[in-house]
Amino acid sequence: KMLGNVLCAVLFMGALPSLADASQGHISVVLLGATGDLAKKYLWQGLFQLYMDQVSSGHSFTFHGAALTALEPGQRLMFDVLKKLACPPDESPNRCAVLKDQFLKLSQYHQLKTAENYTALNREIEMLLHQEGLKEAGRIFYFSVPPFAYTEIARHINSSCRPPPGAWLRVVLEKPFGHDLESAQQLAAELTSFFREEEMYRVDHYLGKQAVAHILPFRDENQQFLDPIWNRHHVERVEIVLKETVDAKGRTSFYEQYGVIRDVLQNHLTETLMFLTMELPANVSRAEEVLQCKLQAFQSLRGLEKNSAVLGQYQAYASQVQEELQKPQDYISTTPTFAGVLIHSDSLRWEGVPFLLASGKALDERVGYIRVLFKNRAYCTQSETLRDAGHSQCKAKQIIFYIGHGALNTPAVLVSRNLFKPIMPKGSWREAVGQPDLHVFGQPLSDYYVYTPVKERDAYSVLISNIYHGRKDFFITTESLLASWGFWTPLLDSISHQSLRLYPGGVENQHLLDFEMMSGEVAFTLAEPVELLNPNRLMPSDYRTIQSKFRQNPLVSAWSEDLISQLASDIEKTASRTVARSGQFHLALSGGSSPVVLFQRLARHHYAFPWKHTHLWLVDERCVPLTDAESNFFSLHSHLLQSVRVPYFNVHPMPVHLNQRLCVEEDRGTELYAKEITALVANASFDLVLLGVGTDGHTASLFPRSESGLEGSQAVVLTESPVKPHQRMSLSLPLINKARQVFVLVLGKGKHDITTLLSRVGHEPRKWPVSGVSPSSGQLVWYVDYEALLG
Amino acid sequence: KMLGNVLCAVLFMGALPSLADASQGHISVVLLGATGDLAKKYLWQGLFQLYMDQVSSGHSFTFHGAALTALEPGQRLMFDVLKKLACPPDESPNRCAVLKDQFLKLSQYHQLKTAENYTALNREIEMLLHQEGLKEAGRIFYFSVPPFAYTEIARHINSSCRPPPGAWLRVVLEKPFGHDLESAQQLAAELTSFFREEEMYRVDHYLGKQAVAHILPFRDENQQFLDPIWNRHHVERVEIVLKETVDAKGRTSFYEQYGVIRDVLQNHLTETLMFLTMELPANVSRAEEVLQCKLQAFQSLRGLEKNSAVLGQYQAYASQVQEELQKPQDYISTTPTFAGVLIHSDSLRWEGVPFLLASGKALDERVGYIRVLFKNRAYCTQSETLRDAGHSQCKAKQIIFYIGHGALNTPAVLVSRNLFKPIMPKGSWREAVGQPDLHVFGQPLSDYYVYTPVKERDAYSVLISNIYHGRKDFFITTESLLASWGFWTPLLDSISHQSLRLYPGGVENQHLLDFEMMSGEVAFTLAEPVELLNPNRLMPSDYRTIQSKFRQNPLVSAWSEDLISQLASDIEKTASRTVARSGQFHLALSGGSSPVVLFQRLARHHYAFPWKHTHLWLVDERCVPLTDAESNFFSLHSHLLQSVRVPYFNVHPMPVHLNQRLCVEEDRGTELYAKEITALVANASFDLVLLGVGTDGHTASLFPRSESGLEGSQAVVLTESPVKPHQRMSLSLPLINKARQVFVLVLGKGKHDITTLLSRVGHEPRKWPVSGVSPSSGQLVWYVDYEALLG
Repeated sequence: KMLGNVLCAVLFMGALPSLADASQGHISVVLLGATGDLAKKYLWQGLFQLYMDQVSSGHSFTFHGAALTALEPGQRLMFDVLKKLACPPDESPNRCAVLKDQFLKLSQYHQLKTAENYTALNREIEMLLHQEGLKEAGRIFYFSVPPFAYTEIARHINSSCRPPPGAWLRVVLEKPFGHDLESAQQLAAELTSFFREEEMYRVDHYLGKQAVAHILPFRDENQQFLDPIWNRHHVERVEIVLKETVDAKGRTSFYEQYGVIRDVLQNHLTETLMFLTMELPANVSRAEEVLQCKLQAFQSLRGLEKNSAVLGQYQAYASQVQEELQKPQDYISTTPTFAGVLIHSDSLRWEGVPFLLASGKALDERVGYIRVLFKNRAYCTQSETLRDAGHSQCKAKQIIFYIGHGALNTPAVLVSRNLFKPIMPKGSWREAVGQPDLHVFGQPLSDYYVYTPVKERDAYSVLISNIYHGRKDFFITTESLLASWGFWTPLLDSISHQSLRLYPGGVENQHLLDFEMMSGEVAFTLAEPVELLNPNRLMPSDYRTIQSKFRQNPLVSAWSEDLISQLASDIEKTASRTVARSGQFHLALSGGSSPVVLFQRLARHHYAFPWKHTHLWLVDERCVPLTDAESNFFSLHSHLLQSVRVPYFNVHPMPVHLNQRLCVEEDRGTELYAKEITALVANASFDLVLLGVGTDGHTASLFPRSESGLEGSQAVVLTESPVKPHQRMSLSLPLINKARQVFVLVLGKGKHDITTLLSRVGHEPRKWPVSGVSPSSGQLVWYVDYEALLG
Repeated sequence: KMLGNVLCAVLFMGALPSLADASQGHISVVLLGATGDLAKKYLWQGLFQLYMDQVSSGHSFTFHGAALTALEPGQRLMFDVLKKLACPPDESPNRCAVLKDQFLKLSQYHQLKTAENYTALNREIEMLLHQEGLKEAGRIFYFSVPPFAYTEIARHINSSCRPPPGAWLRVVLEKPFGHDLESAQQLAAELTSFFREEEMYRVDHYLGKQAVAHILPFRDENQQFLDPIWNRHHVERVEIVLKETVDAKGRTSFYEQYGVIRDVLQNHLTETLMFLTMELPANVSRAEEVLQCKLQAFQSLRGLEKNSAVLGQYQAYASQVQEELQKPQDYISTTPTFAGVLIHSDSLRWEGVPFLLASGKALDERVGYIRVLFKNRAYCTQSETLRDAGHSQCKAKQIIFYIGHGALNTPAVLVSRNLFKPIMPKGSWREAVGQPDLHVFGQPLSDYYVYTPVKERDAYSVLISNIYHGRKDFFITTESLLASWGFWTPLLDSISHQSLRLYPGGVENQHLLDFEMMSGEVAFTLAEPVELLNPNRLMPSDYRTIQSKFRQNPLVSAWSEDLISQLASDIEKTASRTVARSGQFHLALSGGSSPVVLFQRLARHHYAFPWKHTHLWLVDERCVPLTDAESNFFSLHSHLLQSVRVPYFNVHPMPVHLNQRLCVEEDRGTELYAKEITALVANASFDLVLLGVGTDGHTASLFPRSESGLEGSQAVVLTESPVKPHQRMSLSLPLINKARQVFVLVLGKGKHDITTLLSRVGHEPRKWPVSGVSPSSGQLVWYVDYEALLG
């Protein structure tokens, strides 16, 4: 009770410490959630550290703890925390004791619940400034409260607690900032209605970790060494890892809603990933430049798919959730507590380099690190036994940003001695000595240059100092937050019912959570040893692709995803066989939406496809420029050509755009294309033609009752579509029927009616052009998914 | 003297051993060079082994040693060797003694010098067969003689010593089989005039090494495990290594002519390489199938260039050559005694996988091995200290065919336990035990399944047995021999004057011979530490880029390598700036050889280049199809487009090939290109045009006194070149001069005269078209290397 009145007392006695020399003005810090866990553990200590560091900066400070609790109990709780504030080891005990005393005097508790409470707080601050004759420099509002409370607090601050013009406002927000793209957008929109972008400081405390915060400066200062090697030609893989030994016990009400991806990967590990992959801005300490480079790096990330991740859950989690959240015994949680994710960037710099992100609870050790492993490009002629003398190029080359804990138990930067001796800022990092026998990442510590911080600093101290200095580059902007959610949300959606591997926790996990990369995907290395979490859910592999007959021809049917995999494999097999036989493969592809998934599958999973020897032709085209988003070729280009290496000469778009006009008869585009086919394709007989089917039975751009293309000698024709854009160019039925192989792909419920109809009708191309597809000496195979087949 | 008559004696006494049960017929083995080194060390022992193995086969044998030496001394020399024949450890001493006695009785010395000698030998064989009533099965002639003697001996055998119809002839030839493609072709042609292909057995004794001989059977028997991983997606690198501790002392007269590449790489290591890379034939023991697959594998090898190899020579070699070959003190040998070569196969299976071949004399250890290292695709969640239990997927995965010597000191096949347990033929290989602490290839032996031969056999014994069995797959055919020389000869030519790194020999070599791969090339890892053999070459880094004026415009000059780097950087800077300003960058590029290096530089070192927003235009083109190797576009495609991602729509080759014909006026290609430029490039003003200069002062394809393109309103013109192909298409000078920036690149001594001339003349485009380059409102920069500038 007495403590609670300290500030009021000193205020009126005019004995506030060190407000006198406040030539730079006064700063009011308001900590909302002042008695919560985070405040207790880190924030008050961080504020105290700020005070110690900046007491002679020319700024004066007051600190306002706030919570919903009424004044008296709130005061008591808060000062219980403040009394325990620790003096850092590098501070003289005397000075610290004096400063702590002052800090306590400058700190005050407020109940902030109603609009009036906020108005009162504002009035108090103004009064103090007035009484002391102080200029106001700015106000920091630190939101250490659950996100559902953000909007209301933000509204109150905006309406009642803004500092006068000339002083700044900084609101500091703690994650979570939404739990998917939509909710993050919503939250961001609300906040944006109260605060300007430059007023918002979204905390990712990882950016305050010394090793993480040093990634960009390290890249900048060591450009001369990194420039030649910081790319796909030299980097073998990158691992970004945060392992915890603790589990979610006591926090399941939070954890059950979020899981490890939202809790750790979407924010901490992703931010770190960006620091590694982004192009280096000209000035690494200019927040705006860093942001632009970061957003560009986000754009280069390849989209994640279900198989980009492996997921696990520690065995005790289920019962913890049942107990803490009063769930029934048979309640099954699908929340992952472990995730390993493979990420690729399609930038020229990083194309093909695997970035592995891994994090989990209840693992065998607590450690965080970023490890960049370089390719071994050396051959050592000297025998192994002699090789270890000196720092042979045959040893592993790595750069490691060691976040903390683990074997080293300190933040550190490690650079293999056979790479280079890094340039490190003398004042803040120093070369570490000792523990040469310790092995980290497969090598003795003596194989590395090891640097540790001169002064180890808690992440929150670092961040609070950065807030004070207005260093926005240490915080998450709205744009980069949304970019990150945009990247993660599709994965979160696709795995929401995915099976989780159960793991016992700790060292008993053994190799259960090891995983491997295969063709751009990841999978656990060990076959499922115990049980899946959702054993009664049917797995796609439980359904076998069925093979049967459709219209007297082979039919392949499955759920669409499996069907596309099968089709892609079949195309690759045909391609390889054909190239082996004739040296080239002529593939004609249809437009439309169904093939897009196929294109993506081919681009991402078929590394052995003989693209170099493949010619790509179009089955049909819309009469629009090739660069138009409606163009079939444009779609083929975006989803396939951009990602594989088909020689320029082997790509054959339809000439719909000649003499700056579209599909004009007299420009003779159809003839031109027919000639090109005749010149390059033996007997004008394509090795494989991929077709689709419209709900009206059209195929290629051959529509019912078309006047051309259904018969006759023309190989390529101009046709009219009932839907826009009306004008089309298309291969003719007779040409299609010369192909060695024709695959027809039919996907989706919308195609069920036409599929049913086609199963009954005969050869009636004028009514249903697709019924005229019947290769004279080639093979026809139908790929129809269950939805189209069974409705 | 007495010994020499033994055979004659027994012949006439009818007491020849074991000729009686020769139901399969008689085999005569003639060893030419019977008293030479190879015969002494290996061949007689191999023949004795054959006799021991096949004495009960139903064949009878006689062995005829032959040499140029007269009968009596020859007999003495030969029987001195035969007396010392050893009994193998797995043979009972009694049986061996009896068989050795028989073997001596069946062996006879002949002087083979004149045509009469050969006729006499033939007569003796026929007589014996007649007297003993034996059917003739075949004759083996083993050429253990220098290659210059081959032709004459071959002629004699062909004319006088062929067996009668129904019996086979097998002539066995020892390397060298030529010293480059031409000499090998010549030798092969000569031999082919005497023997049919199936009669010739060219020995590469490496194919008799047990580990090498087992590569194909291993691949065949373990197909189920290897199929998924024996490819570029899983193999990280392959090393094929033969290290020797001995030097060339005493053999320099041979070695000085051949060197390590001809002595070891062209034959032994290349054959091994083929066993690894070739597609597996359906039947691995059918010589014809193996040969076809091997020839195909040869075709897939990417051509070697100068920088595909690093070369060394041990320090003592020079003085050994001087002494043994009576060379003067200042004689410099350019014969490499060490070579490391990087080989790539462009097959779909192996594209991108480095195959490193290394061999040398005077190294630190004697060892031979083939090591296939697989990629590490696993992430191990478990901490390192716990990882070693079991056979973690994070440990290295390797398959090693260990030829012999070294730490293991036995032939062996090693397969990492985390790969698979291989299937090995029970009779001939067995699992080895012991030495678990021995480390090989970075891992304890206990990490591998280790197999060693049940019976260790000398390579020559194996090969002689294969000759007897007619297993031609263990020998080099004419086709594969020439394929190998065809592969190696370009490298041998290009390095004939290359500098060699001198090395002290033995363990003192330290890391001197370690080398590294970089963009498809290799280089020693350590900078030249002592001295180059040809030390008077200036290093590029000795000179800095200088900036000055040329023809009133900025001049950048440096050694060509630095100049190209500078130019590439300047182009990237211009590109980034232009894209930032206008969203796109229009770049017009010249053909010719100088830009190739630039293209490669841009492809390999400029990851941040805004290719996605770059339009590529051609400055000029030869009137050949775009897929012709002479086409400028083809060169641009091979060296740049294949490696970067320029959208298809942004690539603008010149339309030299319309209506299936080349540069015909009425096809109006020039108009078409001009229209395309007008449609896409604002004001038809390219952002950057890159030009070159010909020795006659031409630029683009605008030649002196050209009738078009030097002035006037035409943007694109057809021109005539004085050299083939004569017809060209080119941007005109007026169009070039509209560009915002023009860079002219001039490289090489050959351009010194024109450079000097240009520095003096004014604006005279009709005489020297390049002198008319003068952007009306843009900037012109000259990039001229020192050789062009200073001569």
